[in-house]
Amino acid sequence: MAADVRFLGPARPQNLAAILAASGGEGAGDLRLVFRGVAPLASATGEDVSFCDSRPYAQALAESHAGLVLVTEALARHVPAGALSVICTSAILAFGQVAALFHPPRKSAGTIHASAVIHPDAVIGKGTEIGPMAVIEAGAQIGADCIIGPFVLIGREVVLGDGCIIHNHCSVTHALLGKGVVLHAGARIGQEGFGFVMNAQGRFVTAPQLGSVILGDDVEIGANSCVDRGSLGDTVLGAGTRLDNLVQVGHNVLTGRGCVLVAQVGISGSTSLGDYVSMGGQSGASGHLNIGSKARIAAQAGIIKNVPPGVEMMGSPATLKLDAMRAALVMRRLGAASRRPSKPDAE
Amino acid sequence: MAADVRFLGPARPQNLAAILAASGGEGAGDLRLVFRGVAPLASATGEDVSFCDSRPYAQALAESHAGLVLVTEALARHVPAGALSVICTSAILAFGQVAALFHPPRKSAGTIHASAVIHPDAVIGKGTEIGPMAVIEAGAQIGADCIIGPFVLIGREVVLGDGCIIHNHCSVTHALLGKGVVLHAGARIGQEGFGFVMNAQGRFVTAPQLGSVILGDDVEIGANSCVDRGSLGDTVLGAGTRLDNLVQVGHNVLTGRGCVLVAQVGISGSTSLGDYVSMGGQSGASGHLNIGSKARIAAQAGIIKNVPPGVEMMGSPATLKLDAMRAALVMRRLGAASRRPSKPDAE
Amino acid sequence: MAADVRFLGPARPQNLAAILAASGGEGAGDLRLVFRGVAPLASATGEDVSFCDSRPYAQALAESHAGLVLVTEALARHVPAGALSVICTSAILAFGQVAALFHPPRKSAGTIHASAVIHPDAVIGKGTEIGPMAVIEAGAQIGADCIIGPFVLIGREVVLGDGCIIHNHCSVTHALLGKGVVLHAGARIGQEGFGFVMNAQGRFVTAPQLGSVILGDDVEIGANSCVDRGSLGDTVLGAGTRLDNLVQVGHNVLTGRGCVLVAQVGISGSTSLGDYVSMGGQSGASGHLNIGSKARIAAQAGIIKNVPPGVEMMGSPATLKLDAMRAALVMRRLGAASRRPSKPDAE
Repeated sequence: MAADVRFLGPARPQNLAAILAASGGEGAGDLRLVFRGVAPLASATGEDVSFCDSRPYAQALAESHAGLVLVTEALARHVPAGALSVICTSAILAFGQVAALFHPPRKSAGTIHASAVIHPDAVIGKGTEIGPMAVIEAGAQIGADCIIGPFVLIGREVVLGDGCIIHNHCSVTHALLGKGVVLHAGARIGQEGFGFVMNAQGRFVTAPQLGSVILGDDVEIGANSCVDRGSLGDTVLGAGTRLDNLVQVGHNVLTGRGCVLVAQVGISGSTSLGDYVSMGGQSGASGHLNIGSKARIAAQAGIIKNVPPGVEMMGSPATLKLDAMRAALVMRRLGAASRRPSKPDAE
Repeated sequence: MAADVRFLGPARPQNLAAILAASGGEGAGDLRLVFRGVAPLASATGEDVSFCDSRPYAQALAESHAGLVLVTEALARHVPAGALSVICTSAILAFGQVAALFHPPRKSAGTIHASAVIHPDAVIGKGTEIGPMAVIEAGAQIGADCIIGPFVLIGREVVLGDGCIIHNHCSVTHALLGKGVVLHAGARIGQEGFGFVMNAQGRFVTAPQLGSVILGDDVEIGANSCVDRGSLGDTVLGAGTRLDNLVQVGHNVLTGRGCVLVAQVGISGSTSLGDYVSMGGQSGASGHLNIGSKARIAAQAGIIKNVPPGVEMMGSPATLKLDAMRAALVMRRLGAASRRPSKPDAE
Repeated sequence: MAADVRFLGPARPQNLAAILAASGGEGAGDLRLVFRGVAPLASATGEDVSFCDSRPYAQALAESHAGLVLVTEALARHVPAGALSVICTSAILAFGQVAALFHPPRKSAGTIHASAVIHPDAVIGKGTEIGPMAVIEAGAQIGADCIIGPFVLIGREVVLGDGCIIHNHCSVTHALLGKGVVLHAGARIGQEGFGFVMNAQGRFVTAPQLGSVILGDDVEIGANSCVDRGSLGDTVLGAGTRLDNLVQVGHNVLTGRGCVLVAQVGISGSTSLGDYVSMGGQSGASGHLNIGSKARIAAQAGIIKNVPPGVEMMGSPATLKLDAMRAALVMRRLGAASRRPSKPDAE
């Protein structure tokens, strides 16, 4: 069974020539041979393209009825006799490119729904689609070929580069977005950060939150995630950085390029991340820290000190992963020891 | 004081006969005797129905001025002299059924608000209510007697069974919902999952996210929770499964029937849960795992390995609850030992 | 460089007299001297006001080109020769007051957008602004000088005091709000709590959720945070309490005045907090607990027992901070010991 066409619309049939070109891989066969869709190994039919790039799926590959398989060289010998194979450096990457032939990503329709409320001083780029019930405030500048979904708020003076996709129910205020930024449903960009001080009467007074949010090109933000604007400076997410759902980014956080924050990560105010930092699900970092490039933070870890580049951190409070694993091992031994019938305490 | 009628509207008075029938319990008294509302033990008056089903509340029961108490047999002797008692197998369950007499759940008004934007190709079932500012896209099929709240988006080709309640501000796209599904405010169902690969130029490329979300009958999803659609297959939550607020469910997650995920739980992609699995608040599970039926995961636990059916897990990374408690005990002893004035280290 | 004026609008120039008055501090100079904006130490010019109140920034202060610095007495000697100084008890507090001169907080415009859907039985206070696409249901009572943002739902019979700011996309149902309450984008107030019981057929049945949410004066709730309404009683947040983004507050939770819940905190049902309790990011508390006034809960801590007033708690499950730190120290020693080339196990 190929991918569900209910939501995607019918797949566009592709011939082997097109598939080879999109995959960037190598394979032989009648270039006019036509395939009808993409599917996982287990459910693919002779008309489907599938892929395999990891050894645990070698058996599934060997048993697949797929008509064509995108596969890494190391796994090519497991391709069943009935299937064509296309050898790729990264089969999953190639599969993504091939799948986009059959199911091209939705493009802007270029239409503006009659129910949208668009301020006359806003500028909407050529080919940009504005969905029903969207609100675009004064001075907003939206690039070309963007898709603005239903119930989206684009606030005063906000700037969006070309090709941004802002899914339904997002809020974008006090923010400058690069090209190709994607915000998933319900993301909140640009609200006031969590900064206040207690006055002499014991009441909290909000500290000035005068900055902005800057999202680099191709940044993606998950559903219901929040990125607060800077207090005096700005909150900045570098190009290509991706946030999963329900992530919290505090005011004045800075990230480099290509960081990956998995679901429910939280980063406190004024912490900086280098390039290509990854943080596992539900991990967190205190404020005013530096996390070096390519550091890898495990799920649920709690970072409370600066992290050098390239290291792996684990635990709460987090330590180097090796130390955390060693400590866990010691704990397990102690736990196991305590399980034995205990001799009278000699102490 | 009975339940606040400001938001509920006035309670509908009920006589003992109706209360007995709804409770499924046993009690004696004038069947025509009328009660005016429901209230907790401490504030109930002689015209109110209350309940007690746990021993810690025995004293509150003994001191209550409630006119009628739904109570388990074991606690019946604490019912004060002035109150009628109805003996129930589960007093809380009976109380829910009785409370629904006084304050029936809101039913669909069957009206469609003039401000809603409904595509002419959408199908709206008989008796279904559509609130102000809702958006229903092309091909959507909504069952009978549903309530669609304000600012809800029902996306293209989405299917809802009969009797669904979709509260305000929800997003439902790429999804098939059974009967009686309840989504609380701001839930996000069906957005793209968090899947991508790095290409040769160091840029992330989104992996195909071509699947759907399938929610079984009577599934409930809490406010601002997120359920991503499958990548090639589907994300499926079994019948009766309940998610609290701010829960994250990744792409291709599967759950059985009656699972309970407390607030801020996160489940990574492709992990499967059996039936009646419970996960405590802020716990998480890595991807591609199996968690057996009736397993119980403690709050804040981090599951990184498969979990057999029926066990209790605790800690991050999680171990069997008994082992985690034993290790904590050992830690406490070591901590306490280190508190004493230390002798010179003999090592 | 002063604060970005794109989103704020141009700063309103202020003379020294006004700045001194707003700061509550002491300083000398020509009272007619005019400043143009506020800026951090590093980027301030001679026309800007900046501030310094912590020793780590003494060097930045010494090197600043700011025209005027709000500063505590202890740091005054680091103010560079070219700058005026104003000595304040709390420089950050004074800076907030001074910044509000240059960039006054947005006030209600007092306008009601034509696209808002307002029930004829709702009462809107004098000077209150209602944004585009807002929905105000029957019986709602909104005070004077409030700002209701785009896509906000104010539900049936909800009451808002004067001067509330409800940012875009919020849901407010079953709730009574005091004066000056601020809800950030996407906050969910008043939805049903997570309470249900299993019936004899193994199906979950929702327990009655008949209560309300009561928010005291000046409560602030972060973006996408959730506060569930009470089941029989109410969920109550005391005056001045502040929640960051993505916080979860279960049904029947009670807090005192001035509590601070950092991002992604979760509090389970029926737990009570005293006054001025602080909970660090991603920490959580089980249900039916009491946390004493001024208790300080560390980030990621898991509270599973009552907490006395004033103590610091840490870890999951949480212990007194000192004990948690001592245990961590013991662990590190054991881990380090296990790192040495091990002698044959003598056991």
